[in-house]
This record gives sequence, structure tokens and C-alpha cells, in this order.
Amino acid sequence: MTETVISSATKEVVIGFDRPFVMIGERINPTGRKLLAEEMKNGDFSRVQADAIAQVEAGAQMLDVNAGIPLADEPALLAEAIKLVQSVTDVPLSIDSSIIEALEAGIAVYQGKPLINSVTGENEVMERVLPLVAKHGAAVVAISNDETGISEDPDVRFEVAKKIVHAAADHGIARSDVVVDPLVMPIGAMGTAGRQVFALVRRLREELGVNTTCGASNVSFGLPNRHAITGTFLSMAIASGMPSAIISPMHAEVQTAIMAADVLAGHDQDCRSWIQEYRDPNAGGGEGGARRRGGRRRGNAS
Amino acid sequence: MTETVISSATKEVVIGFDRPFVMIGERINPTGRKLLAEEMKNGDFSRVQADAIAQVEAGAQMLDVNAGIPLADEPALLAEAIKLVQSVTDVPLSIDSSIIEALEAGIAVYQGKPLINSVTGENEVMERVLPLVAKHGAAVVAISNDETGISEDPDVRFEVAKKIVHAAADHGIARSDVVVDPLVMPIGAMGTAGRQVFALVRRLREELGVNTTCGASNVSFGLPNRHAITGTFLSMAIASGMPSAIISPMHAEVQTAIMAADVLAGHDQDCRSWIQEYRDPNAGGGEGGARRRGGRRRGNAS
Repeated sequence: MTETVISSATKEVVIGFDRPFVMIGERINPTGRKLLAEEMKNGDFSRVQADAIAQVEAGAQMLDVNAGIPLADEPALLAEAIKLVQSVTDVPLSIDSSIIEALEAGIAVYQGKPLINSVTGENEVMERVLPLVAKHGAAVVAISNDETGISEDPDVRFEVAKKIVHAAADHGIARSDVVVDPLVMPIGAMGTAGRQVFALVRRLREELGVNTTCGASNVSFGLPNRHAITGTFLSMAIASGMPSAIISPMHAEVQTAIMAADVLAGHDQDCRSWIQEYRDPNAGGGEGGARRRGGRRRGNAS
Repeated sequence: MTETVISSATKEVVIGFDRPFVMIGERINPTGRKLLAEEMKNGDFSRVQADAIAQVEAGAQMLDVNAGIPLADEPALLAEAIKLVQSVTDVPLSIDSSIIEALEAGIAVYQGKPLINSVTGENEVMERVLPLVAKHGAAVVAISNDETGISEDPDVRFEVAKKIVHAAADHGIARSDVVVDPLVMPIGAMGTAGRQVFALVRRLREELGVNTTCGASNVSFGLPNRHAITGTFLSMAIASGMPSAIISPMHAEVQTAIMAADVLAGHDQDCRSWIQEYRDPNAGGGEGGARRRGGRRRGNAS
């Protein structure tokens, strides 16, 4: 029954075993988005604002905010982006950086209880990030790799996650505030990538009692019709007990798969969200359409 | 590593833990199909033939054949249907009836090793069906209900399945020749229906070592956009270890979900079937399309 509570100034989101799936919008990230990187570097945050609004309208209950741009002042940019996003949306945020000073700058301006993204199992990283998480009463994404890199052996990744959870406890951070990312590899490059994640999610939940999340779109990298692979991956991850993911909420296949998986996991009371989504006569579709028509309406507020 | 081998005169299909998912086409069944029932009763099997061919073209690796029509000579009709289907397709069949004489008539004309659908945990039914299965060296679908009906308690359903597996063993039937149907309820009527099946499939596989199958379309009964629910259910069932289902292979959402789940379960070597399906430039679609274009090309032959 582990529940991770994340909040903005006015809204709480709960990531939990028996909760509807939480989509954390991944779009506000200049990595691999040249135009966005250039604009942010030049102080133009209009695309950040538009992406924030669009993702929330598409159903994201949280947003990840990253400002990792080479040769830019990342702490200042991240703080600016967070202030802006919090001024135009009310969803809680994940503050995403591998630079401790950027995390600090982001936390300093954040209103509410953020999700810090991320800490790894590297001792040096844990010693810098965990005190910050503890000091601000935040939650944290724990990525299951360490000094030796990302192991292909899921048992090793489980042990790394366990090490982080124990180190967090030593800093006074509850295991409910540690959300483990088991790391998702492209299935096109590694045929066992799916099975590994499903087994790890189950173990992390049953043996370690922690919530999980992941960067899900990575799984379909390089494949045709990739959003169908990503959506199916998420439904299978939900069947294995994963309660959240960092993804783009903008694709119909992904949205439909998550909503259907919530129905089948028993997380959509009386199928209300599903029926509302696919039966709304004003939404222009009606029965049988797999395309989404407008924003997802279900809530996750506690 | 349980593997259930079913065959026609010329083709083998293997249902197994580490095998691609087996779609057993459900369409040749007059239950709820008034026109088909009327035609079959009058000796017109043209629709049976068309449905057989269409389902195999759509990717069904096996076909279920049922001739349950009130006030008709079911044994004669079932035998006739089976002969016809075996004359126009080469896939192995599931011989489907609740009447022992119809099963006997079907088996008598069948070429190969059939899947007998079904036996329940009712003592009287087991005593009639299991000797027939043993005598013909067939495989059998075991439905986990008994004299007391269908329990809503998955532990009871597990015990019923166990009882059938043990009774089968007493008749000399290997557990690899018993394919358990954990029974799928409509999720719209029973919010725990999905979770129950996923948990049962896992237990049946891990504790009892048996393959599973189910009538999957029942799960989405009464819901809008139902094929998306059925497809997502199947991907979640595959994540839980279910290797086959009795379904209509005619819906794109179902086909795509199964193919994607096979990729993610590591059952589509190098994603070959997926890439072939969605990248084939001659198929008129190309990247991004979720619709299927022609028959599924992957095989399951051993």
C-alpha cells in the first residue's frame, strides 16, 4: 500500500499501488530537442509554456522539467522554467537534473513537495542528493545503476535499488518517498528488456515495497509504429505493478492503453473514466473509436 | 517450460510459456449468431467456410469449432463443420461442445491431435470427458468451475483447476495436455475481474505448471471501444504468463496488442514479425499505422 505524495501549491498527486496510473509529462526536456534548447538558452520560454499546457490538457497529472543544455547556466534556466510552469499549470513537478546545483536552484523556487529526478546508486551522487531530498522533505527518483554502470542483470539492478532505499532511510527518507526507476532499454536492441522490467517492478513492489516509474518511450526506440509498442509496454508494466511513468502524454495509443490498463487493474471505479472518454456524444467520436478526443478527464487528486 | 502440442494432419501448433501467443479463432460458434445458427441447422455451411478462411488469413493459428444449436443434431453438425473446416484450412482445431456425444462425433472425424473444449471440475463431466481425451491422446481445456458454479474467489478457482489436473493425471493425461481456462468475467460488471485472471494465470503457471487460455472478449462486454479493452487485457494477460486465448482475430486493436506484447515478452525474435508487419512498403501502410494490413505473417509451427 505504498503511496508517494507529490504536490504543487494547490494540488496533490498520489503515486500508489492501488491508484490510477500517473503520467509524468516528459516533453519539457531540451535533450534531443535542438530548437527548444536554443530558445531556452536565449531566454525564450514560450515553448516550455506551450508544452506544459498541452501535456496537462492531454492528461499528464505531473510534469518533468529538465533544462540540461550544454554550456548554459542550467541552475538559472531550471529555476526559471519551474517558476514559469508553476505559473501556468497547477500540477506537481518532477525537477530533473544530474547537476546538484540545478536541483538546488529548482527546489529553491518550487512551491509544494517536488519529486527530485534523480539519484543513482553511485555513492558520491547519493551523498550529494539524498541530504537535499531529506532537507526539503521531497520525494526522489532512484535510478538503479551505480559506479559500474547499468547492469544487464536484473538481480544486480534490484540490489542497487535496495542500496539506495537503505541509504535514503539512513538520511531519514521514507521508502514511500523513493520511487525506483528500473531502467528501460530499447526492446529492439535487447529482447529481454521487457521481461526484465516486468520482473523487476514486481520484485521492487513485493520485496522492497517501493513505487516505480520509468522513462517508458525508450522501450520502442528505433521500431516502426512505436507508440503502439510503448502503450502495450505500459499496460504490461501496469499488470506487473508499475504505478507511474515519465512519458509523452500526446499519443493516442499510449493514452488508450493506459486508460484500458487502469480499467483492467481495477483502478477506474465502475469504468467511469473509460465510459466518459469513449461514450461522450459531444466529443465527436462515439463508440468504437480508438483515437482520443480532447483531454483525459480522470483525476488523481487525493 | 510446459508445451501443449496440438495438430492437424499437416501442421503442429505449440502453446507454451516461451512461445509466441496462440490466437484460437472464436467465430465458428452459433451461440448468439442467429443467422449462422439458422444456416447450419439447414445444412448450409458456407458461412462456416468463409469464417474459417477469414480467421486464418487474419492470423489465427488455431480455430475453435462449435455447433451448439438448440433442437439441432449437434453431433452431426459438429462433425460436418469439422470436416469442412479441415478441408479448407490446415490449422489445428479446438472441438467445442458441452455434449459428450458431439465431442465424440467431432473427434471421430478429426485428423490430427485436437484440443477438446472443454472439461469442468464437475465430477460427472470429468468422468465422461477425461476418458475420451485419454483414449484419443488429445489435449483438453479445463474450465475452473464445478458443481457449485463459478466462484468469485480466485483461490477456489485455482483449487478447481488443480483438481482437474490431478484427475487428468489419474487418466494418464499429462499436465502439458491440460490447458486451464481461469474464466474471464466482464470488467464492467466486476472490477476485480482483470486482477483475478492475472493472478490466477501466474499461479497456474508457477505453482501448477500448466498452460492457460480464455475466452478473452468476454472481458469487454458492454463497454464502449471494447476491442481496445480486449487488446489491452490480452497484453496484460501475456505479461502475467498466458500463452493463448480464444478470440476473434478480426480486430486491429487486438492483433496489434498481441503482436506488441509478443515483442515485449521476448517472443518475437529480433522484432522480426513486428517490423515486417509495420514496415512492409508493399502493404500500403508504413510506419505509424496501427491498422493491420493483411494477414499476420508470424508462424508458430514447431
